[in-house]
Amino acid sequence: VDDADNTQAHEAQREARWLAALRPMAATLPESGIMTVINYGHDKAGVVPFWAGEGDVPTPAFIAEAAIEALRQGHTFYTYQRGIPPLRQAVAAYIHRHFLADVDPERVIITGSGMQAIMQTVQALVGPGDEVVVVSPVWPNIFAAIHMQEAVARPVPLQCAQDAWRLDLDRLFDACGSRTRALFLNTPGNPTGWIMEPEDMLRVRDFARARGLWIIVDEVYGQFVYDRPRVTSFLEVMEPDEQLIVVNTFSKNWSMTGWRVGWVVIPHSRSLGQVYENLVQYNTSGVPAFLQYGCVTALTDGDAYLKSLVEQCRQGRALVCERLATVPRVRLVWPQGAFYLFFQVAGEPDSLTLAKRLVDEAQVGLAPGSAFGTGGEGFLRLCFAASSATLRTGVERLVAALA
Amino acid sequence: VDDADNTQAHEAQREARWLAALRPMAATLPESGIMTVINYGHDKAGVVPFWAGEGDVPTPAFIAEAAIEALRQGHTFYTYQRGIPPLRQAVAAYIHRHFLADVDPERVIITGSGMQAIMQTVQALVGPGDEVVVVSPVWPNIFAAIHMQEAVARPVPLQCAQDAWRLDLDRLFDACGSRTRALFLNTPGNPTGWIMEPEDMLRVRDFARARGLWIIVDEVYGQFVYDRPRVTSFLEVMEPDEQLIVVNTFSKNWSMTGWRVGWVVIPHSRSLGQVYENLVQYNTSGVPAFLQYGCVTALTDGDAYLKSLVEQCRQGRALVCERLATVPRVRLVWPQGAFYLFFQVAGEPDSLTLAKRLVDEAQVGLAPGSAFGTGGEGFLRLCFAASSATLRTGVERLVAALA
Repeated sequence: VDDADNTQAHEAQREARWLAALRPMAATLPESGIMTVINYGHDKAGVVPFWAGEGDVPTPAFIAEAAIEALRQGHTFYTYQRGIPPLRQAVAAYIHRHFLADVDPERVIITGSGMQAIMQTVQALVGPGDEVVVVSPVWPNIFAAIHMQEAVARPVPLQCAQDAWRLDLDRLFDACGSRTRALFLNTPGNPTGWIMEPEDMLRVRDFARARGLWIIVDEVYGQFVYDRPRVTSFLEVMEPDEQLIVVNTFSKNWSMTGWRVGWVVIPHSRSLGQVYENLVQYNTSGVPAFLQYGCVTALTDGDAYLKSLVEQCRQGRALVCERLATVPRVRLVWPQGAFYLFFQVAGEPDSLTLAKRLVDEAQVGLAPGSAFGTGGEGFLRLCFAASSATLRTGVERLVAALA
Repeated sequence: VDDADNTQAHEAQREARWLAALRPMAATLPESGIMTVINYGHDKAGVVPFWAGEGDVPTPAFIAEAAIEALRQGHTFYTYQRGIPPLRQAVAAYIHRHFLADVDPERVIITGSGMQAIMQTVQALVGPGDEVVVVSPVWPNIFAAIHMQEAVARPVPLQCAQDAWRLDLDRLFDACGSRTRALFLNTPGNPTGWIMEPEDMLRVRDFARARGLWIIVDEVYGQFVYDRPRVTSFLEVMEPDEQLIVVNTFSKNWSMTGWRVGWVVIPHSRSLGQVYENLVQYNTSGVPAFLQYGCVTALTDGDAYLKSLVEQCRQGRALVCERLATVPRVRLVWPQGAFYLFFQVAGEPDSLTLAKRLVDEAQVGLAPGSAFGTGGEGFLRLCFAASSATLRTGVERLVAALA
């Protein structure tokens, strides 16, 4: 036993030395709390995975085949750092078709994932000591990207009211101080499904204008909305010469999570375009051209697929919410948008412990609310983008485990 | 004329305001000097492109088809952040096969390009005010990645001797001060072809050991060597528990520049592995799994292709060096490794001006030496990884233009 203890102590010392040899920012960069549970359950057979933000069907063939054709045609060289021109045009056309916004393709930059779109944006805007006010709970990677710039995230929590998540705008504005450079909003929001109303968007816009702040909006779930015909994009309420950055991804709309392609719409400025080109160059040196041709097809031929996916999520939302609402210990609000249910279980304040227990005892993988920052602890996130058979299996297990 | 001047002045003011709204680091991040010329000549018809670090053949079919099969099989979901296990194992096996080094697959992290491998490494190791001593001239993206951490690069220039590029190790060591955290070496080197000799590697290792410095080595061109059977990897002279990071890419060996997949070998440490997993998560959230299956095939079935590519580069080197050596104004040293000729033209001290002129007057695209930092100005970089027909066309144009 002593020997084992000694070995463990030696190991711990050794690992502590490695962390001390790193930059403090990196040594203190937290593991994603979503990944903590995924890594915990990854190799356990039979777990129904609702922990990640993706469904259970692969990318549709018409998109995959477009990439395959481009790959076979030899589009395997270095390419335009800002994205191939037809893809930047297709993004602009997609925005024009779905929102009341006219975006010049020059404002569109293709990035190696929505995550890279966020990373490049915080790299461009905030440095050590700067502050970003972030509406939370939110995808943990937002906080991490800010931390990686040695900047500070100031979370402003949404309130979980009886019927919906709500944001107190005065709290949001009060959180902005002299070091604040940007507001970060994710609407429709992960993990809560919260949607910012147009009148609030105008107030936020006016506040940011008056204070010279950037608005960064993650509109990745802009199509996943259930109780209204559509959402308003910030691109509809702000001009091309205002300090607005909108990030997006191909991942969610077209079941392309594994492709790692996203985009960002920046203000109309030659200098800003060049800065983003530089950031692409020095982060990833571009996105595979043959994948970009697949993305063109997703945008131009993918509206019907997208519509059917949103319809599936609408049914998934109903299935999950109706069934879990029958469990006395469960407290939930039907999400207005995105494809997550963010719910509480009475008597279970520690979401990470509960999420791990549910992996072991219910064979269901959920993300712990604590991963999503201020206001998230005590909740669990369930992704309902899966097919109804998968959802039914997982939800029945949850009902049994939580009853 | 006054109106036009006013419009221009207004535009300039407007752009200056945009740059002022950015983080100073981003506003001062320079454009890659390679991209300056590529962007200058990109749309000019008939230019023979020797400016980028790639050949003129697409990825071989056996690799592309492996990715296509995986894509059709539906490997389109989020995947292992450190890379799929078979790929990490294949990298370890590749290293074992080609170098006298035994690397545990746990030490291998798959990244979204060699560039991302470098970016994640500087993110992990250096922060604001830290210094990295960099052997130059070198790929400009190294300097940019360091700048993006608000750290400082201290270049130590190679000397261009009569027969080879040489590094004065005393100069290298003298450049290391109290803020120095790491040495950055690229051997075989871009753009010079310089190769660090094993005895110098041992001296650098001993110096870094004594000073507690990290050694970051870019071994991307480790297979492209012409006057000796092979090069020694730093993995052969340092132990798994030393502060060594080796970055690499699939781009050069298997004509996969457009794929954006690289890897990094880190020390054997649970904590470091977790830090790199976090950095993957927050930069790109992983590399497409279906591309990784193509990469497995490149590593396991690609030795013969690699050998033929190196052979082609050997012939390309001879073709280019022999022909350009006949031009009285040209001064060159045959490169020992990599696939670039880095040469001078008498009476042409301004390499960017000359590179642009050669685009216009010779229809040949070269990279300006000024892009590669201290010691690079006055040189031009020519990539000879192309087929001999392309090389012949371009070189004859150069001979005519520089005669």
